[in-house]
Amino acid sequence: MTDDIPKPNFSKSASGLLPAIAQDWQTNEVLMLAYINEQSWVETLKSGKATYWSRSRKELWKKGDTSGNVQLVKDILIDCDRDTVIFKVEQVGGAACHTGYRSCFFRSITEEHCEIVSEKVFNPDEVYKK
Amino acid sequence: MTDDIPKPNFSKSASGLLPAIAQDWQTNEVLMLAYINEQSWVETLKSGKATYWSRSRKELWKKGDTSGNVQLVKDILIDCDRDTVIFKVEQVGGAACHTGYRSCFFRSITEEHCEIVSEKVFNPDEVYKK
Repeated sequence: MTDDIPKPNFSKSASGLLPAIAQDWQTNEVLMLAYINEQSWVETLKSGKATYWSRSRKELWKKGDTSGNVQLVKDILIDCDRDTVIFKVEQVGGAACHTGYRSCFFRSITEEHCEIVSEKVFNPDEVYKK
Repeated sequence: MTDDIPKPNFSKSASGLLPAIAQDWQTNEVLMLAYINEQSWVETLKSGKATYWSRSRKELWKKGDTSGNVQLVKDILIDCDRDTVIFKVEQVGGAACHTGYRSCFFRSITEEHCEIVSEKVFNPDEVYKK
């Protein structure tokens, strides 16, 4: 029954924002984490493309609108207390990060070392033209 | 050089809390998302076990202290703008979720359906005894 389907509980956050993890639907690589509000949730369901809320620009963020690197949502997972979701996505263009790396999590760190562990897919200077 | 190693930027969040994604170090399954403050970050590095900040109890949360299901940190990834980390972990006991499922993200949802997609590993009534 539709009433039994768990939905994100946006009221759990004072800002109305909940984290959404974008994960490659085939490899399970985590590509990025961004935030959604109710409007972006509705838009994601309607469009089938991951849509976030930009905290810096304070506006709906249709991921890939500028770069073309949209995220086609293949599956949505919700956690036990309904305050985080995972968008399992097909990352068009191969890169989620504005720096050109496939994943925003392109650095592995310890207290003493930092290593690049993701692949650079595009040159941001060419994609985000002034 | 140590100065060049990126660290979480806790000042980016008004609450001083940043999201930390726990991901199985071998399968890349996302197990849970919780929050860290500077104290839990330091404790995680020191102990090698994922340590969060409990927003409900307002205290340091050494994951697994009650259930025994600790998370041994095998790797740490940090994102481009240093406001989210991934703990790649070995999940002792096989389950991260307090409901007994392997992952907190045990439900796949659409607007019309909900499906259980994770494995139930333990009975919470037996683990969290009154």
